[in-house]
Amino acid sequence: MRLQKENAIVIFNTLYIYIPKMPTISERGITMPPSPIRKLVPLANKAKANGVKVYHLNIGQPDLPTPAAGLQALKQIDRTVLEYSPSEGIRSFREKLAGYYARFNINVGVEDIIVTTGGSEAVLFSLMACLDPGDEIIVPEPAYANYMAFAISSGAVIRTIPSTIDEGFALPSIDKFEELIGPRTKGILICNPNNPTGYLYTRSEMNRLRDLVEKYDLFLFSDEVYREFCYTGAPYISAFHLKGIEENVVLIDSVSKRYSECGIRIGAIITKNVQVRDNVMKWCQARLSPPLIGQIIAEASLDTPEEYMLDVYNEYVERRNFLVDGINRIPGCYSPIPMGAFYTVARLPVDDADEFCAWCLSDFRHEGQTVMLAPASGFYTTPGLGKDQVRIAYVLKKEDLARALEALAHALEAYNRR
Amino acid sequence: MRLQKENAIVIFNTLYIYIPKMPTISERGITMPPSPIRKLVPLANKAKANGVKVYHLNIGQPDLPTPAAGLQALKQIDRTVLEYSPSEGIRSFREKLAGYYARFNINVGVEDIIVTTGGSEAVLFSLMACLDPGDEIIVPEPAYANYMAFAISSGAVIRTIPSTIDEGFALPSIDKFEELIGPRTKGILICNPNNPTGYLYTRSEMNRLRDLVEKYDLFLFSDEVYREFCYTGAPYISAFHLKGIEENVVLIDSVSKRYSECGIRIGAIITKNVQVRDNVMKWCQARLSPPLIGQIIAEASLDTPEEYMLDVYNEYVERRNFLVDGINRIPGCYSPIPMGAFYTVARLPVDDADEFCAWCLSDFRHEGQTVMLAPASGFYTTPGLGKDQVRIAYVLKKEDLARALEALAHALEAYNRR
Repeated sequence: MRLQKENAIVIFNTLYIYIPKMPTISERGITMPPSPIRKLVPLANKAKANGVKVYHLNIGQPDLPTPAAGLQALKQIDRTVLEYSPSEGIRSFREKLAGYYARFNINVGVEDIIVTTGGSEAVLFSLMACLDPGDEIIVPEPAYANYMAFAISSGAVIRTIPSTIDEGFALPSIDKFEELIGPRTKGILICNPNNPTGYLYTRSEMNRLRDLVEKYDLFLFSDEVYREFCYTGAPYISAFHLKGIEENVVLIDSVSKRYSECGIRIGAIITKNVQVRDNVMKWCQARLSPPLIGQIIAEASLDTPEEYMLDVYNEYVERRNFLVDGINRIPGCYSPIPMGAFYTVARLPVDDADEFCAWCLSDFRHEGQTVMLAPASGFYTTPGLGKDQVRIAYVLKKEDLARALEALAHALEAYNRR
Repeated sequence: MRLQKENAIVIFNTLYIYIPKMPTISERGITMPPSPIRKLVPLANKAKANGVKVYHLNIGQPDLPTPAAGLQALKQIDRTVLEYSPSEGIRSFREKLAGYYARFNINVGVEDIIVTTGGSEAVLFSLMACLDPGDEIIVPEPAYANYMAFAISSGAVIRTIPSTIDEGFALPSIDKFEELIGPRTKGILICNPNNPTGYLYTRSEMNRLRDLVEKYDLFLFSDEVYREFCYTGAPYISAFHLKGIEENVVLIDSVSKRYSECGIRIGAIITKNVQVRDNVMKWCQARLSPPLIGQIIAEASLDTPEEYMLDVYNEYVERRNFLVDGINRIPGCYSPIPMGAFYTVARLPVDDADEFCAWCLSDFRHEGQTVMLAPASGFYTTPGLGKDQVRIAYVLKKEDLARALEALAHALEAYNRR
């Protein structure tokens, strides 16, 4: 409650002027970091409005086509009422998802699968269901920036352990994790293969995580939306492959990346922990239903023949090799070879990648073209880390990557704040 | 951190047996009330499995067809990549929405409109953006049960003011509101026309709310998803029609009910408050994109000819009259005449409507048929209120309503716990 008098200003000691006062917005929102690329978007829009060709290496929106099976299912929808689906998702879709996971030796039943509105909702509901305000989760950084937003939403505290570009962003040593474990620690959150680094955890790293989870009774939140994009030849290691912690695992998934259908907003939470499921379901019921049409498309997409995934895989391997090779040829630049996903975090010969990325959009042109990169600082919470790093997504075709690399090389040559 | 020893049991003073311990789920989730009808669903499923015809008067899923314009747009989608839409929604859709609102004398620009994943997300993001944990909002009860879930998610505290069936669920007196206003009060949340009561706020009630909002610098969260369903003949009064508090209003909307397209998950937050918008956008960016296909369908649905809305309107008026008349003819039953939405809260001659609703599904059959009602207790937070009340949705065609009423009358006759 505020007194009316606060809404007034005294002038000449007697005159009151009424100035409407607004209720304040939430501190939570104010402390929430804006998207690391958000401030760049107006600069990119302005460049494009001026006829500049901008190569978007900043977002994880693949340019590859959605599978024909999904698009066909969309065309064949023949309903008169577009009604709610069950809060946990359409049963036939969940059954088919169980079959899909079985192909990866992830043995889950239909009851273990809850369909969400994208992987984003899966992260939010998992944290809401497992953590109370003040509870902590440990996350290796750099990390997907939106984890922080969802942690702030749930009141959870993210504690990060830096991984370094010089070690190729390998999992930090288990000692470092143990140092952070305290009475409020509830879980560890990993993204594997990793966004933004493209790092793929090894069998031995995963085993060390398992031991830690078991020893301290933690949740293991495992974001595996890039499962299909592993370039080591070795079989993919899911959190569900770790013996003895089956009920600690909360797997976060999405069809967005693997089927190039980010816009349908279909993800999933998979867990064998009945208590977690029951809690998650309360949020699912509160939001009533995941998107009906997205589920129909995603269900059909599960029938996509292996050749599609193989083509996609080969395409990304080629793009990765081409991009990483190209970056490492630019003087002063360095990128490790990412073993998964379709991102890499590279070091550039600049003092401040935020400034450099903005400058590329606002000032620099090479033959009427420029690049948009994501400054890596937004993926770190430890102040000062990643200042000379950027995340690059190789979601463009090779010819475009070539032109983007050319523009980047020229930009770095022209840029004088290093 | 828990000691390993806690995971063991001492037997005969020496033997330790290892029992795996699970991390605990969130208290927040445990305190979150499950959906008031959730526990009835297994009973309904069992009845249906046994061949019983169940009339669903418990949910707000209209049986009316989605407009042809929306279904046609769905059929005509011809894209090869189903990609993210902008986080704030597709611009052409938002522009058309501004035109739609203008038809209701709600004068908002495209910048004032943020597209959300259903009205549910609009409620969640509004609360997240405006309230911090411990902040309070005042809500007249009975109220839409999921407000509570979203309040718990955001840490906000809902303080309710009872409205009574004997006063037709009119807005409680402003004195009652003022009694609850304290230092943590940030806003008032109304649903108008109301779910679950069908009540439609009068001009004078809305003006009193305006005065209160102005006097105490509050947000007015106004859920207007049933805007089209007003049966008084008088023009609809939106929160945006109230002079002087334009920047205090956060309007929550959805296309679900008006176009019978609940499954596409498209809603909106409309506000002229730039700070609120900026905060809301942080959540929108964190979840990347509202559903692409839903937006295409919703945009096309805005072209629905007036005859569709008129047919829908007439249909609901007829259903309402038929249902309310039918309820009031059953001995001991009473329903006010709702002036909006497609719900009514009725009093039944029973001690415990929760029990009665369960019994209808588990025990009672009339010519192989029964009814599913929503016990009203789930819409109240004040303990004990609404125990003899149910929410009835008139979303079925008249012949089905007739049979449902017949079953209800027989059920009440047969039921002996009153």
